[in-house]
Amino acid sequence: MKKLINDPARVVDESVEGFGLAHADLVTVRTDPLYVVRAGAPIQGKVGLVSGGGSGHEPLHAGYVGLGMLDAAVPGAMFTSPTPDSIAPATLAVDGGRGVLHIVKNYTGDVLNFETAAELADAEGVEVRTVLVNDDVAVEDSLYTAGRRGVAGTLAVEKIAGAAAERGDDLAGVAAVAERVAANVRSMGVALSACTVPHAGTPSFDLTEDEIEIGIGIHGEPGRRRVPMAPADEITEQLTTPVMDDLGLGGGEQVLLLVNGMGGTPASELYVVYRRARQLLEARGVTVARSLVGNYVTSLEMQGASVTVLRLDAETTSLWDAPVRTAALRW
Amino acid sequence: MKKLINDPARVVDESVEGFGLAHADLVTVRTDPLYVVRAGAPIQGKVGLVSGGGSGHEPLHAGYVGLGMLDAAVPGAMFTSPTPDSIAPATLAVDGGRGVLHIVKNYTGDVLNFETAAELADAEGVEVRTVLVNDDVAVEDSLYTAGRRGVAGTLAVEKIAGAAAERGDDLAGVAAVAERVAANVRSMGVALSACTVPHAGTPSFDLTEDEIEIGIGIHGEPGRRRVPMAPADEITEQLTTPVMDDLGLGGGEQVLLLVNGMGGTPASELYVVYRRARQLLEARGVTVARSLVGNYVTSLEMQGASVTVLRLDAETTSLWDAPVRTAALRW
Repeated sequence: MKKLINDPARVVDESVEGFGLAHADLVTVRTDPLYVVRAGAPIQGKVGLVSGGGSGHEPLHAGYVGLGMLDAAVPGAMFTSPTPDSIAPATLAVDGGRGVLHIVKNYTGDVLNFETAAELADAEGVEVRTVLVNDDVAVEDSLYTAGRRGVAGTLAVEKIAGAAAERGDDLAGVAAVAERVAANVRSMGVALSACTVPHAGTPSFDLTEDEIEIGIGIHGEPGRRRVPMAPADEITEQLTTPVMDDLGLGGGEQVLLLVNGMGGTPASELYVVYRRARQLLEARGVTVARSLVGNYVTSLEMQGASVTVLRLDAETTSLWDAPVRTAALRW
Repeated sequence: MKKLINDPARVVDESVEGFGLAHADLVTVRTDPLYVVRAGAPIQGKVGLVSGGGSGHEPLHAGYVGLGMLDAAVPGAMFTSPTPDSIAPATLAVDGGRGVLHIVKNYTGDVLNFETAAELADAEGVEVRTVLVNDDVAVEDSLYTAGRRGVAGTLAVEKIAGAAAERGDDLAGVAAVAERVAANVRSMGVALSACTVPHAGTPSFDLTEDEIEIGIGIHGEPGRRRVPMAPADEITEQLTTPVMDDLGLGGGEQVLLLVNGMGGTPASELYVVYRRARQLLEARGVTVARSLVGNYVTSLEMQGASVTVLRLDAETTSLWDAPVRTAALRW
């Protein structure tokens, strides 16, 4: 294992410390327990947004803390849920008097720990609502969860709910928008290689030189099937068609298309995937109204990509377009 | 070789096509010859900025086309200079009547081809100036060039010169700012793994399981030395100290610190490197006034990172802060 780290036990702390130093204009890092809050938090009169999860998926979630998106991100150890005693203080820290929305990827540990944290916050008088993201169409249950996994669609929920909070919606309103995005977003990914969790020291699974895993999870957990390596257009079709079918997309609809790199894939390859995914959507009469291509929800250095499609309506489009100022997404 | 491509001979065309579709609000892709121009180009009354080089370093250069940065990017084949018959039309296409600046990384092929293109444009009545970027302190000469190589410092030249052009400076003024940035920026990189150029099909060099290459070039060309794998802090010191020394940085100075990923390195590791590089600068009494951490000038899926330091003055700081709206850099 060759990694630019000092010690597997300190990589998250040191990385988040570096993140805080690099982006001091946007965020503040709190330690004991470790979490990242938007500079100036809490924002009085605004619903607070908190997300979090195992580290190793950067820029998710700390990279999305800032104006128009999250108020706090709670990083766990690598591929390990953060604990309630980190999530609860982060929740209290961003309550501006109008309650807090938890955005939770559907993994058993995350769900339980955010639930406990919500109870702790509630006991302190802070109202918490939770939206679950489970956009991965690949498998129904997997190593880390019952039900579908939450993957790159999480970014869309955080961005659009963040914009709703920023414009002043109340907690019920922000939660409703977040639910609507979660209900209309689907993803599926492919791995060309595994990744190595620092404290494990060896790759999380094995793929032969000409094998790929279709439907991979963001922790390297198994997908739908292993198939021989194929041209990018063919692989992209195997990701995009199930996503479109599951969404029940029809002609005349408008979507956001996100082609997400898993961490170790060159940008040039992501645009080759984007090109084909877009062709497939357009062939169905769907208009790609918004696009995003890059490393947004990763699995350390894994090679591969995922295709995420979000069905847009007028309101979610305008919330997507609203200003955002975070380390990893800004316009 | 497992890559998300269809055909090594078509990867650049298909990738740039996808890029153009994803970012149609910012750029237009022209074909035969292939280049990318800012939407609405040429901008009348503005000095045009053109850069380019071998593909495989994305988002460099097409990702930096847009308001406040480049007017055109000319992609060559993978790791291969673009030819004058692409560079010259791109130059003419972005001339708004005040001449064009070529920003050229110091590789023999790029230098010759941009020179020929400048002569062709001159014959058409377009004045061209050229700034050479040679920020890599690792080696004096290498496989691809005489003199120092141009690496991640190129981004700083493009951003700051782009802002000068956007505010209306004339060609001599934009060239002078670009020269000043190029004279005050230094970089050095490390590779933990090689990358594979699609049409070659095998890794560009070999590193054993516990070896790294200090001073790597962005094409995988040899650096200063191969050393055993070491903790990130130690590696970062081996990159940052030569950069600071070569710049002659002293106490009280202000810098931009860019920690750049080579394409296959997790963001978490880049922030670990950033943390140590910043400590080293501060220990010398240098203030890190601006920061950037991410995959900005890559080598396909290579694992590794580079440290770039730019000495700032009041004007270059304010030009760095000026609005930019491109696919890969925006604020």
